[in-house]
Amino acid sequence: MINVTETKTDMDVINKIMSRNQIEFEEINRIVEEILANVKKNRDDALRDYTLKFDRVEIENFLVSQAEIDEAFNNIDQGLKEALLNAKKNIEKYHEKQLIQSYYLKEGKDIILGRLVNPIEKVGIYVPGGSAAYPSTVLMNAIPAKIAGVEEIIMITPPGKDGKIKDSILVAAAIAGVDKIFKVGGAQGIGALAFGTESIPKVSKIVGPGNIYVAMAKKRVSGYVGIDMIAGPSEILIIADEMANAKFIAADLISQAEHDEMAASILLTDSRNLAEKVVEELAKQVEKLERKEIINKSLNNYGAIIITSNLEESIEIANQIAPEHLEILTEDPFAVVEKIKNAGAIFLGEFSPEPVGDYFAGPNHTLPTSSTAKFSSPLGVDDFLKKTSLIYYSKEALKGIKESVIQIANDEGLTAHANSVKIRFEEEV
Amino acid sequence: MINVTETKTDMDVINKIMSRNQIEFEEINRIVEEILANVKKNRDDALRDYTLKFDRVEIENFLVSQAEIDEAFNNIDQGLKEALLNAKKNIEKYHEKQLIQSYYLKEGKDIILGRLVNPIEKVGIYVPGGSAAYPSTVLMNAIPAKIAGVEEIIMITPPGKDGKIKDSILVAAAIAGVDKIFKVGGAQGIGALAFGTESIPKVSKIVGPGNIYVAMAKKRVSGYVGIDMIAGPSEILIIADEMANAKFIAADLISQAEHDEMAASILLTDSRNLAEKVVEELAKQVEKLERKEIINKSLNNYGAIIITSNLEESIEIANQIAPEHLEILTEDPFAVVEKIKNAGAIFLGEFSPEPVGDYFAGPNHTLPTSSTAKFSSPLGVDDFLKKTSLIYYSKEALKGIKESVIQIANDEGLTAHANSVKIRFEEEV
Repeated sequence: MINVTETKTDMDVINKIMSRNQIEFEEINRIVEEILANVKKNRDDALRDYTLKFDRVEIENFLVSQAEIDEAFNNIDQGLKEALLNAKKNIEKYHEKQLIQSYYLKEGKDIILGRLVNPIEKVGIYVPGGSAAYPSTVLMNAIPAKIAGVEEIIMITPPGKDGKIKDSILVAAAIAGVDKIFKVGGAQGIGALAFGTESIPKVSKIVGPGNIYVAMAKKRVSGYVGIDMIAGPSEILIIADEMANAKFIAADLISQAEHDEMAASILLTDSRNLAEKVVEELAKQVEKLERKEIINKSLNNYGAIIITSNLEESIEIANQIAPEHLEILTEDPFAVVEKIKNAGAIFLGEFSPEPVGDYFAGPNHTLPTSSTAKFSSPLGVDDFLKKTSLIYYSKEALKGIKESVIQIANDEGLTAHANSVKIRFEEEV
Repeated sequence: MINVTETKTDMDVINKIMSRNQIEFEEINRIVEEILANVKKNRDDALRDYTLKFDRVEIENFLVSQAEIDEAFNNIDQGLKEALLNAKKNIEKYHEKQLIQSYYLKEGKDIILGRLVNPIEKVGIYVPGGSAAYPSTVLMNAIPAKIAGVEEIIMITPPGKDGKIKDSILVAAAIAGVDKIFKVGGAQGIGALAFGTESIPKVSKIVGPGNIYVAMAKKRVSGYVGIDMIAGPSEILIIADEMANAKFIAADLISQAEHDEMAASILLTDSRNLAEKVVEELAKQVEKLERKEIINKSLNNYGAIIITSNLEESIEIANQIAPEHLEILTEDPFAVVEKIKNAGAIFLGEFSPEPVGDYFAGPNHTLPTSSTAKFSSPLGVDDFLKKTSLIYYSKEALKGIKESVIQIANDEGLTAHANSVKIRFEEEV
């Protein structure tokens, strides 16, 4: 099932795993283009047609009513509701520390500079439907937007064949402070958020995960509206030494593998003994699990146990991979953290398995995949803020520095730039 | 020359101007693909071939030597050098306030959460050559990277036919703290930074402006490496009332128009009298300027004076346009600022013309164009930082919340996620 290798310099297995990605099919691209154009032109009518075609349900009114939300609160398991409320509290507490304020630099009354921080006015959140309808997606995307001060948070999600949205999704949206929820999904939903329709307001930025149609539609409208990153398939990397518990490691590799067949699960360890135990545990545990078919495919294709010569080498390879999720299961995980340069989220020690971060602890679960942690970051409050520079110079202040500006402008051959300063000090004609 | 209109509801002129953009030519795309593939395969050899073909010069050693930098310091006009040093000081002072630190949240010894902030390790800066070789580009891109703590800042810029780089570019790079400068430009330069060659190190992020080949190459490698935004053509919007000085306004519209034929210059004013004076001034001033051909074309195609019914309406339209540069030339510009929601940079009052910000004041001149200020921000220190989440739970802490995690995992149908928590509390077999 899982690939076991001990090559230390040959990164072939790793390279194969890290270059896996959603493929762009010409055909899908063509369909997405057509859907977007149709939504732009025919608006709600187009949405109704596509919802009938793809979601197999006729939707008259896309907006989820207060009555539907109330019903979801009645139906939901009270323990689950409490769990979501507790998760919300943790996510809020963690993200509130990311809020930044405007700043100013003043030199007397003559110079005022500033960086103004404002929330993006309207934001759209895409939440997948069907088997990938996760309330945690709602919390992780809506709460940072709310903390940023976004005026209107619009959520869209495809309805089931019964025209309904899953209870936990509606409850999560309500507790996270989503302003409006619309029953529409797919590329058509992305088009609706980007262009606006009779029912659905145009937003300035769209965030949230989705299938290949949603991802390509987001890519397509990007630049016209803002988008978060197009996430690749999910991955976990575990660094473990001989002290680590093989049972826990196997469970964590499997929990990643159950996401989908493209998910990657990698163990780096300097202990051959541990590696062998993990292989045994994997076989034992997979058998008992509901999603074992997906798990086996994912481990076969993109699972790997790599035996390294020592912990230092494990760390070096981890930094090269820049994994989305990194678990450190070593004797002193905090000492290892200091050497990690590239990762989306780091989970430390035996009792911090990835699902704690996926749902509950507070940090965002939208993380950079496919080595992009080398240059990008978890979703956060900053993704819903934008900045504007401010420059004020008095006449005196401009007079004092005008020669510098003119000199640089002339060097750049932009004489009209120089002129716009000069003209302010010419004698009136 | 400039378009004058007074329509208040019909946004046709504005829409035409704001939807102007660099067009993607199939042919250019094909060429860029070919160049990137060649650089990936043949590395330095490919760079040499393209440099001979496009820049008409044979380059043996791409790396700019210390002797060349010393020579640039000898050659440069001392006033210009001083101006660049002063600009550097201002840019540093403004951007230093953007540096953010890691934060931690602890609950006793049982829970530690954190957001680790690290600089991106290696960054590449593209600086255009020829008539668009601007030392201000160097300062505005390199200084925020330096403040972020980037370990290695690599700059690339195309050589002249004599194989040399402009003095002011080399001096700006040296004073901004660029680590290495290479003589290579175009799509081949972007390919070199993205893939690495024998001479040029692979970087994790590429920033800086460039022509259509450079822009399309950046778009192409985006995701594989990080990039800053692909900037559209530049634009200025001026809000003025009847108190404003027509001469200054005309000079500022023109200074924008001289950039290139795609640049847009828009005046919104509620004073017909002022509008007429600006039209006269434009005609008078353009005649005297070196780049008058470009200026006239730009004003013809993408210049507009729009007479609004009042200041409020001017503000409303400005927010809809979300201009890259916004000058406020009204009786009380600070009162207007409070109502501006969307803009890249705001210039307040009669003595804060745009060139002060382009070169000198401190805020970055890389700004969101084409209405993207609705969701994006000036280049800043943050663009060179990346964040990693940190999660530690003790056994006790995990025990306390495990039911919540299991409940959400089960609702999401991810039973292996639930299992990775459960297994940690099973009796040892």
